This record gives sequence, C-alpha cells and structure tokens, in this order.
Amino acid sequence: MKLLVINPNTSQDVTRLIEAEASRSIRPNTELTMATAPFGVAYIETRAESLIGGYAAMQIAAEHYQQYDAIVVAAFGDPGLTALREIMPIPVVGMTEAAVLSACQQGGRFSVIAISQRIQAWYRECIASYGLEGRLASIRALDEPLQHIGQVQENQGERLIELGRRAVEEDGADVLILAGAPLAGLARSVADRMPVPALDGVTCALIQAQAMVDMAAQTPAAGSYTQPPTKPCQGLGAPLAALVGRQPVDA
Amino acid sequence: MKLLVINPNTSQDVTRLIEAEASRSIRPNTELTMATAPFGVAYIETRAESLIGGYAAMQIAAEHYQQYDAIVVAAFGDPGLTALREIMPIPVVGMTEAAVLSACQQGGRFSVIAISQRIQAWYRECIASYGLEGRLASIRALDEPLQHIGQVQENQGERLIELGRRAVEEDGADVLILAGAPLAGLARSVADRMPVPALDGVTCALIQAQAMVDMAAQTPAAGSYTQPPTKPCQGLGAPLAALVGRQPVDA
Amino acid sequence: MKLLVINPNTSQDVTRLIEAEASRSIRPNTELTMATAPFGVAYIETRAESLIGGYAAMQIAAEHYQQYDAIVVAAFGDPGLTALREIMPIPVVGMTEAAVLSACQQGGRFSVIAISQRIQAWYRECIASYGLEGRLASIRALDEPLQHIGQVQENQGERLIELGRRAVEEDGADVLILAGAPLAGLARSVADRMPVPALDGVTCALIQAQAMVDMAAQTPAAGSYTQPPTKPCQGLGAPLAALVGRQPVDA
Amino acid sequence: MKLLVINPNTSQDVTRLIEAEASRSIRPNTELTMATAPFGVAYIETRAESLIGGYAAMQIAAEHYQQYDAIVVAAFGDPGLTALREIMPIPVVGMTEAAVLSACQQGGRFSVIAISQRIQAWYRECIASYGLEGRLASIRALDEPLQHIGQVQENQGERLIELGRRAVEEDGADVLILAGAPLAGLARSVADRMPVPALDGVTCALIQAQAMVDMAAQTPAAGSYTQPPTKPCQGLGAPLAALVGRQPVDA
Amino acid sequence: MKLLVINPNTSQDVTRLIEAEASRSIRPNTELTMATAPFGVAYIETRAESLIGGYAAMQIAAEHYQQYDAIVVAAFGDPGLTALREIMPIPVVGMTEAAVLSACQQGGRFSVIAISQRIQAWYRECIASYGLEGRLASIRALDEPLQHIGQVQENQGERLIELGRRAVEEDGADVLILAGAPLAGLARSVADRMPVPALDGVTCALIQAQAMVDMAAQTPAAGSYTQPPTKPCQGLGAPLAALVGRQPVDA
Amino acid sequence: MKLLVINPNTSQDVTRLIEAEASRSIRPNTELTMATAPFGVAYIETRAESLIGGYAAMQIAAEHYQQYDAIVVAAFGDPGLTALREIMPIPVVGMTEAAVLSACQQGGRFSVIAISQRIQAWYRECIASYGLEGRLASIRALDEPLQHIGQVQENQGERLIELGRRAVEEDGADVLILAGAPLAGLARSVADRMPVPALDGVTCALIQAQAMVDMAAQTPAAGSYTQPPTKPCQGLGAPLAALVGRQPVDA
Repeated sequence: MKLLVINPNTSQDVTRLIEAEASRSIRPNTELTMATAPFGVAYIETRAESLIGGYAAMQIAAEHYQQYDAIVVAAFGDPGLTALREIMPIPVVGMTEAAVLSACQQGGRFSVIAISQRIQAWYRECIASYGLEGRLASIRALDEPLQHIGQVQENQGERLIELGRRAVEEDGADVLILAGAPLAGLARSVADRMPVPALDGVTCALIQAQAMVDMAAQTPAAGSYTQPPTKPCQGLGAPLAALVGRQPVDA
Repeated sequence: MKLLVINPNTSQDVTRLIEAEASRSIRPNTELTMATAPFGVAYIETRAESLIGGYAAMQIAAEHYQQYDAIVVAAFGDPGLTALREIMPIPVVGMTEAAVLSACQQGGRFSVIAISQRIQAWYRECIASYGLEGRLASIRALDEPLQHIGQVQENQGERLIELGRRAVEEDGADVLILAGAPLAGLARSVADRMPVPALDGVTCALIQAQAMVDMAAQTPAAGSYTQPPTKPCQGLGAPLAALVGRQPVDA
Repeated sequence: MKLLVINPNTSQDVTRLIEAEASRSIRPNTELTMATAPFGVAYIETRAESLIGGYAAMQIAAEHYQQYDAIVVAAFGDPGLTALREIMPIPVVGMTEAAVLSACQQGGRFSVIAISQRIQAWYRECIASYGLEGRLASIRALDEPLQHIGQVQENQGERLIELGRRAVEEDGADVLILAGAPLAGLARSVADRMPVPALDGVTCALIQAQAMVDMAAQTPAAGSYTQPPTKPCQGLGAPLAALVGRQPVDA
Repeated sequence: MKLLVINPNTSQDVTRLIEAEASRSIRPNTELTMATAPFGVAYIETRAESLIGGYAAMQIAAEHYQQYDAIVVAAFGDPGLTALREIMPIPVVGMTEAAVLSACQQGGRFSVIAISQRIQAWYRECIASYGLEGRLASIRALDEPLQHIGQVQENQGERLIELGRRAVEEDGADVLILAGAPLAGLARSVADRMPVPALDGVTCALIQAQAMVDMAAQTPAAGSYTQPPTKPCQGLGAPLAALVGRQPVDA
Repeated sequence: MKLLVINPNTSQDVTRLIEAEASRSIRPNTELTMATAPFGVAYIETRAESLIGGYAAMQIAAEHYQQYDAIVVAAFGDPGLTALREIMPIPVVGMTEAAVLSACQQGGRFSVIAISQRIQAWYRECIASYGLEGRLASIRALDEPLQHIGQVQENQGERLIELGRRAVEEDGADVLILAGAPLAGLARSVADRMPVPALDGVTCALIQAQAMVDMAAQTPAAGSYTQPPTKPCQGLGAPLAALVGRQPVDA
Repeated sequence: MKLLVINPNTSQDVTRLIEAEASRSIRPNTELTMATAPFGVAYIETRAESLIGGYAAMQIAAEHYQQYDAIVVAAFGDPGLTALREIMPIPVVGMTEAAVLSACQQGGRFSVIAISQRIQAWYRECIASYGLEGRLASIRALDEPLQHIGQVQENQGERLIELGRRAVEEDGADVLILAGAPLAGLARSVADRMPVPALDGVTCALIQAQAMVDMAAQTPAAGSYTQPPTKPCQGLGAPLAALVGRQPVDA
C-alpha cells in the first residue's frame, strides 16, 4: 500500500525525523511518501499555528491523495485531521488520535510527555475533543525554551525520561506517549528505561494507517463524514475546490 | 468603539444579512466594519469548510486588527475563533460562543435551530468544545437542500418556527438559538411567535463584543492565550507572520 | 436603564465596596440602586448561608423589581439566582455566572481566587451547577480567618496576587476571577501585576446585566423559566405571593 | 430513635400522605414527628418554590432538632437539604437523594415518574447536583394541570403506571421512582403492576434516615460540612442564629 | 432477617475481621452467616483477582441464596456485584457501593484510604462504574508492601490516620472511607481521631443490606436486572446453571 | 505471528463464525488458533454471563499464552479483557474495544447494532467503562427472542440492515458496529447496502491484535497493568496460579 505522510510543520529537519521513524514502522509492501507544509511555522505549539498547519495539510492532501491508500497527518495535536477525514475518500490518520487509541489498548490511563509548556493546552483540548480526557492521567512538559527543534532528543533526552517516570509514579499513568514529531524515534531508543510502555506518535500513526487500509471500510454516503454538500467556492485552487465546493466560482 | 465583523463565508449576501442585524445591535458610539472571506465557500456547514473559513478569517484579522477595539467572527460554529483569540491583542468574539453564553444566562438548557441536517455535527462539536454540551437540549434542523442561502428566512421561516416550538415542548429547551449567519435578523422578527426567548447569534456576538471592550481586560502575558512563542515561519504574508512567527524566513 | 443591585450579605461595608466598583462599570445612562439583605449573615461562605441570602434576595426583588430593567445578585456563589430568574419578568444576573461566562470568552480555563478555605466547596458546586466545571482550572483561597470583611483587600492584597500567580503557573489558568463581593474593585487595581486577565465579579455582573437588557429577550411563556403555575401559598408577604402563588391563602 | 419529618410544602393533606407512608416504613422503636412548613406554597414544583421551602425547613429544623436523632426533608427535589446538613449535628436525609441512592443499589439506570411537566427541570437539576445524571434513564411526567394535590393518586393512578411502563420499555429503566410527596404510598399499592422495582421517596428517606442513625458517624470537625464559621448575623431568630451566626447582632 | 456475607478473598483471617465488624453492625433480629471463597487469592487488589473473586462469590451465592434475605459481597471493589444482582431474586449489596452511597449522604466529596498503591486503579474504576467519580476527592494509599494482611490495622494504623487527615486538608474530602476488608473495624476505633466521618465498608454494607430488605422491593420482571434469558450452558454446576442457563447441557 | 482467539461463549457454531471472519482478517504470515470456553453459556448477553465467560477466558489464556504473540477475546462486551491484560505479558485485544477505537478513527459518533434487547445494557456499560460513552450515538437491537444463535444473520439480516439505517438517519451515527460474535462476517457482506462504514468486531479485533504486535510495546514493570503482586492463592490450577498468585498454597 502507498501512504502519504504530511508534516504540517515547515521544518525539513522534523520531516526527516518523522521519515526515519515511519520507515521503521511499515511493513515490507508499504511505500512512504513524505510531504512538508509549504507555509506555516517551523513547529506547531498553539491553536493558531495548528489552524495554519491544518490548512496547509489540506492543500497537500487535496493535491496528491489520488495516488495513495491512506494519509497520515504527522504532527501531534492532529492539525486539520477531522477536516481532511471529511473530504478524503481514503483513511486519514492522526498522530495524537492513533497514539491515544493505542494507549487505551495497553492500559487504563496514559500520560503525554511534551516538549514545551505552551503546547500542553492545545494537546489537552485535542484529546478532550476525542472524548478521552477521562483516560488522560496528565501532561508533563519540558520547561525550557526550545533551541533547535531537530535536536530536542539529544539535548533533553534525560529530562524527558525523568518526566515519564514521574507521570507513572505520581500521576498514575499506565502508558506514556512521547508527544510531538520532534520526538519521533525517541520511544524506540528509551523503551527499556521506561517503567511502562512508551508510545511514539509516528509509530502509532503508521501502524494505525496500515490497519485502516486493511479494514477496507466503505467511504460514507451519509452522516457527517460524507463529502460536504456541493456549493459555490472561490480562491481554493482546483484540487481543494473539487473536494469542498465542486462548483468553483473562480474556475 | 470600532468593531471589525468578519464573515468567514464568501457570500456577500450573507455579509449583508449580518450587517443589517449587526447595525441594530450596536450602541450609538460603536462603528462597524464588515469584511468578507476572500476565499472559501459560500456557506460553511462542515469541519473542512470551517477550517478554510478560519484561515481566511485569520488572514483578514491579521491585516486589519490594529484599527479596531474588538473582532467578531460572524459564522455559527466559530471558525478560527480560539486561534484568533490567541494571536490578537484585542477581544475576539464568536457567534456560537456568544449565543450559548447568553442563553445560559436566560434559562437552564437551550436548543439550536439550524438550517441544514449536515451542519448539526459541526455545531454539536463546537458547543462541546466549550464544555457546554450538558446545557444543550437539542439541535433541530431543516431537512431540505438549501437553494438560495440569502433567502432561507423567507422560504423556510414557518418551518424554523415549528422546529423551535418542538424543541421547547419535546426537548425541554428554555431558550432557542436561531443558528447560522443566514438567519441573522430572524429572531427579532419572530420573537413574539416563539414560546421562549429566541436568540440571534449576530445580536449576541455584537453585544458581547461591546461588553468585552467595556471590560477592558489586560492582554495576557502568560497562559495558553498569550502570543505564541517566536519561531521561524514561511509563506504566511507579513501581517500574519508578524503575529505568529515574528521571524519570517521568507521576509 | 435602571439596575437593582442586591447584596445578599447583611454587611453594609460590603454593599459600599460593591457600589463603588459597580459605579465604575456602568454606562452614562445607567442608574444604580443598591439594596442590602435585611436578614442573614455578614458574609456568605456556605450552602446554608447562601440559602438564607437567596431568600432575602428574593424578598427584596419581589418588592422592588417593577421599577427596574434588570437585577444583579451581588454575591459570589449567586444565592437564589435561578429562583429569581424563574419568577422575575426582567433579566437577573449573578456575579459568579457573569464572571465565569466572561472568563470563557477570554481563555480556555479559569481559576477562582477566593477569600476563605471554607468558601471553596460552595463555589465549586455553584460552577458545576452551570455545567462549567470542565473549564475550572482550580480554586485557590486565603487560609487565615477573616478579621474585617471590609478590609480583606488591604490586609491580604499581596497574598491574593501570589495565589493568582500560582494558579497561572501551576494550574494552567488562562484567566483569573477574584471572587467574592469583599474583593470588589481589587482586580482593577492589581490588573497590571497579574500575568493574565483578572476579572472582578461585580464588573462582569454589571456589564452582563446591561448586555442582557440590550438583548431585549422576550419573557418566556413556556419552559422551566416561565412563571411558576398558580397555586395556594401562605406567609410570603404580598409581593412574593403575587409572583409565586398568586392565590395567597393568607391575603 | 426519634425522627423529625419536615414537609417543606404548606399542604396539610400532603403531610398526612407522608405520615401515612412514613408510619409504614419505620421500625418498632422509631418515633415519628411531623412538621409542616409554616410559609411557602402548597406544592413545590420550581426552583423558586424550592428556595422558599428550603428556608422554611431550615427554620423548623433549627427550632426542633435537639430532640431528634435525624431529620427527613420530605419533598422530592430536597429543598434545603445540603444547607441543613451543613448546620445540623445530626443526620439529614432527603427524599430524592435517598430514592436515587436506593435505586442505584437495585439496578443500572432509573427513571423518575413525576406529577407535572413543570417539575421535571428542577428534579433533573437536583439529581445532576448529586453527580448521578448518568444513572438517570428519563423523567416522565403527567401532562395535565394538577387539581387536587392530595388526590393525584386516585385521579391519575393508571396514567402514572403507564408512564412507568414506558420508562422501562422505551428508556431502559431498571428501577422506577414515583416522585413527589403527593405520591407517597402509591408505590406500595401498585408494586405488583410494575415490571421493575418501584420506589417511594418517603419509604426510601425513612429507611435511609434510620440507616444513617445506625451508622453513628461522627459530626465533622473539618471539611465543608462542619458548622459554618462564626460571624455576625441578623434577623434570623435565635435558633437559626445560634447555628449559622452564633454572634447575633440583633440578640 | 438472615444475611449471607461472602468474603471473595480466600483468607480466613480477613473473614474473621469482617465477621467481627459485621456483628457490631446488625440489629438484634438479624442473623449472619459467613462464607469464604473456596478458590482465588488471599487478598484482592487487581482486576484479574477481582474477576476470580467475583466468580467464586457467584458460586457461593448460587448454592446458598435460598436460605437468606440478602447477600453482602464483602470485598472493597465489589467483585461480581452487578453479576450477582442480576441473577439473585434477593438484594445483593457491595462494600464499595454501600460505602460511597453512605458517604454521599454525609458530605459533598469523599476520599478513599486504601491499603496498597496497586489497589487504587481498581477502586477508581469501580467507583467510576457507579457514575460517582465526580464525588471522589482522592484515593490515598499505603506505599509499603503488605506483610500480614490480617494485621494491617495494627502495623499501619497511624499511617492510615495520617493519610485520612491529608485527604481532608489537601484534597477537600468531607467524608473518608477506610477501604478494604482488612481494615474492617478500624473506622470504629479511630473515629474520634478523624476530622470528618470515617466510614467502614463492612458497616455500611451490613446497614444497607438490612435497609434493602426493609424496602421489600419487587424482583424485576423486566429491564437489565431481571434474570437472564434461558439458554444452553455447561460446566457450571447445578445451582449456577439453574440461575444462568436453566437448560443445563451437562445435567 | 501467532494469535490465540478465545471464544468466551460455549457455542462451537459461534466459534466457527468467528474463525471464518478471522481468517479473512489476517495477513499471510499470521497463524490463528481458536479456543472455545469449556464452561459457561452458549451466548453471553448479561453481566453474570460475562463474568463466567471472563473467568473461562482467563483459564484458557493462562494455559496457552506462552505459544502466542497476542490474544483476542472474541465476544462483544469483552469478557475478562482488562483482567487478562493485567496478567498476560503479551497484548490482549477485545472485540468491543477494537471496534469502538476503529470507529473513532472513521467518524464522530458510532452506533452499535445488537442482536437482542437484553444485551444493550451490558454493551453500554462496557463502552462507558472505556470512557467513550460520549462517542456512542445509540444502541439499537433486534427485539425478538433468538432461536438459533448460529443463524441470526440468515434469519435477521434485513432487520439488522434496517436498524443500521435508522441509527444513521435518526441517531446521527457516522459509523456502525455490527455487534456480537454471532454477526461475525455480516458487515463484509452487507457493506455496500449500508450508508456509512459498517464494522465487524472480529475484523477490528484481528486487525488491532496484529497492530499491537507490530507495536512491540514493552511489558509494563509499573502501573496498574504490571503483573499483580505475589500472594497466596488456592484452587486456581497451576497455570493461573503462576500468573496471579505465584505462591500457590494448594500446589
């Protein structure tokens, strides 16, 4: 199967981290294509940045989806996920959603270990929007400004492990999620130093994307995830207009 | 005070409906400026369309906010509301949020009367994201395809009133919200035919926007609604880059 | 417009604090009338005291409402609020309700800074009754016995600011509510020392009361906030009997 | 043991119904004393009436509690229950609370069968305030105006049974609560015509009151249910002042 | 009345502790019979152990219920409670359920004081399954390995009291529940050293069991707690087969 | 990889249905082994039957797990799932959990289509225990007694499709789950007649089991899903004793 992995951040360094971990999480017959947001911010931490990243991901998806079996939105917080799922006739999987659903299958409550204080509110709202705030034991985050987004793992590895340990001991987490694309691959390397399963959002998203393709569910013809009703649109570019409006005024 | 009212839909007909009702909802010393989304769809009904509308609203806000005291996002479902609130140093008010908070001050549970079946899921998720699903008695919606978005009130007025009556009698609503910018002004004209208070999102948003300006609250210097951390960005245009990235790579 | 502000506490010192802040929160054409509970306790901190204060407020409202456009119940915890709203044909606004709804329009989660440990449970239950416990980051309170209720601000000002800072840093509050009528006016004077918007319940209540009058919503003819059904009553005094029973047995 | 049963309604007919059922629900060594609200409405259906009834119950309790082992607040909706519990050094039991907790020990979800449409919102809020809305399958109510409150059972018995049957079949109730003091005794007479256990609030309250006395729990010296802090009060009468203020200004 | 008290743990020491406290919690005309799980673990702390204990309790109940008026499942966490309630024609009461419902009648929020760290997750899930997680202030637990399950009270008494005090002061508990059959009787002996009512699960369960018998509710003929539908079964032994399958294939 | 699929029902017909669908849901290199409960009921519909089935599944798992990479509990309602997950060092997947988590990745809210009225309460409680009741649009069920559990699909296929259609149109479901092992394979054959994706619990469970093996998460050494503490046990048989007690008294 062919998977399109969209990094809604503009950082190529982050795309490389995602790709490296994604490559370790696919089956032999799965092919990966990476795409990086052409506009937006280097690393998404807030609601505003997520809205921009979500729109960028939507543009990429609209342009390229026809050659793929599924799409992965590869930023924690899942920018644009439900919007893409609504207009795409193929499965769309998000890193946060995939990670929390995987965590739910391995324990009672999970904690998220994050790379900045600011990012916590957005993560919490994302998880709450999936109805799973009751399974969230805590979010714990690094408290220093991020210098080099591509080098968080090297610079802050020990501190991240310590946060994980405290989440288990003090917050009652049965599973840890190491959150954020810049941490892609970390869980694999520190797994044996963590007291409970430590999940990587990229790994979970790739595995769930392949699972969703395996499932071969029908594209909905009704309900709130069938394609939006036909209507006039403008300024969207032909690929997105074809999906959202299908009556482009500016065509 | 000066208010910028952004219509995240691309329909000028809808902008005119909003403006007419907004003009009836302001105090003598309040000045209105209307803006219409330069790209997107004529009328937002889905998560995907809302993401596009939110990004369009963000672009407009970034370009013009410096001349205003507050911004109103004038589409039910509040496209981009929390994102704008995060980056704007002035109050940002949404139609849904303002309507549901006003309803909470007038009764126990409220119902939303909407203009299409499809729109209900997005509305429900919006209200749930405010933590107020427990106050929502029901959403009831028209079930015919929308022909002329600017003429819903004329064509469907009686049916909308009937839906309102059933929400009160069968669902236990103490307050009704006539939802969606295309219904702007309807509540005012049918109020005396409704058994309970019927709220108009435009009215509520304009009144709350003025209330927020009255409140003169400080712009936050901490927490998750202070301006996002400085970071590289690209492709956003100078106004938005100045707010979100403040280190434009493509400057 | 004319507003009746009812202090359900019996302390005249507190009434003066409320009046001073209320006067700063009204528009030029708004007139204020203050009323103080003729029976009850000096300062309400518990469920029992709130029940008494609510009944006192109901007596005052029943006697005087006909000369006003709206009523403000000016004690945090909103004694008797929903009861008054049910029987009054004009808007009734509460300090807690107005403050939390205003906070919701300015951030994700809010904290309440309170003047005694004991008061916290009652506040929490009040906020939960509005369905907004999910938006409450924390309640933090002074832990010394209150000496002079009219002088809390002077004696405990620094400590209250410190509690606010911890609510932001440790509990994730985006907005602070300085709670309790004895703190009326404090937010205004310490705003620039707080890291996030600090709201004053009196300010919020006065602004929302004027907003509700602006809205000019119909009095309900159905639902659970229309006037109670006619029935025999006794011992209530003519004004309240006229609203609740309307068939006074003891007339 | 000695129990004081307070009817917060002013109707003596209702007091007699309560007493008849209460007499059937006590053990040989339990003595009952009935008290009827000296002011208020004949039958409580709303938030406003409940506030009045709660204050009346508080007055009665303050005056007489010293001769009793426990107090029963005998109106569905539990007027003043938590307030009384806060100031009384003996157990205080409410009809609704006792009925829903008894129902929880007999099935998964329960329905409430009520005597008027209007009463439903108040009941729902009462049950929600106990945190048990998730166990509530439905509230179903008679839809005709109540003529003779002391004769509801005779006039509407068949209709009440029918509502109960529908709650089981359509709403998934495992247990029924026949709600409201005017229905006292009905459950006992129709039990064999109901498909699931049908609980009487008076029965449940009396049985739980005796259970609470059996439990002999300590009066709290801390927490939010210990006696309110000492403070000035006025206009409360000596018995209530002794409990709430304990520094009566008007003594 | 005759009560069957089933200890789902295999420890006879624990059975003796339960019996001693149960004997102090019954009325003169109540007779107790104790039963100890014939298989399972000495002391249940986990979901797996609770499943085993629940099945053991079910076997005992099926064999003996016909001679009793009610059954008490005497392990905190209520192993098998809802299953037994479904198949038994007599009331079945659980220690946790009885304790939390009793706590709800004495305060706003309660804390559970438990005997091991591990046991907390299972307790939390049990309380959540009753819909009462919103009333739970905290669970606090001993953090040393348990040596002699029959001697926890002697060895850890002071530490348990200290945990209770912190739950009141730091977590806002109005009531404490000393949880786990090995603590049976402790509440009675330390009550006067606790700042709030301290409940014993055994006491609560016995008192509620007698209350449920007093209530004399009908056995359900419909709903999800009526006897399961007749169906083939095997390997269950005649008594359980008679209740669950009633068409024993292996008879 | 090698998967052990445990049918907690005793019906061999059901095991055959599960096996047929499971065989269609595995990858080429996955090997299946089926096991059927040696004791219990033919088809689990209630809490009591689920407790028995859970204990039977635990026995099978304890005896055979060492030869497998993951275990599937193949009854809707997931009998014993969390208990097995606690004691097994390999992933354990349940049909309900896998189906609802898969549904969450394909839409907003899902409905469950079930084979009997009675089964609904147990399903609802199961889904609620995962914290996902907020995503559940409805449960709809056949209302005739089940004759031949192995032939439900043939006899009731049209009726099941009709229930699915109503769940979408009336309840707002975006995804359907055809629930219960006796429906295994039905979704595959009726997919093109359903308006939204229709999921089969067996398919979902097999796909998620393989995903969990792919994930290769560490076995927890802490938290509430690490192996229970060592303790005396009796009567469990050597394999289960080794997992739960590890100090078999009866060895």
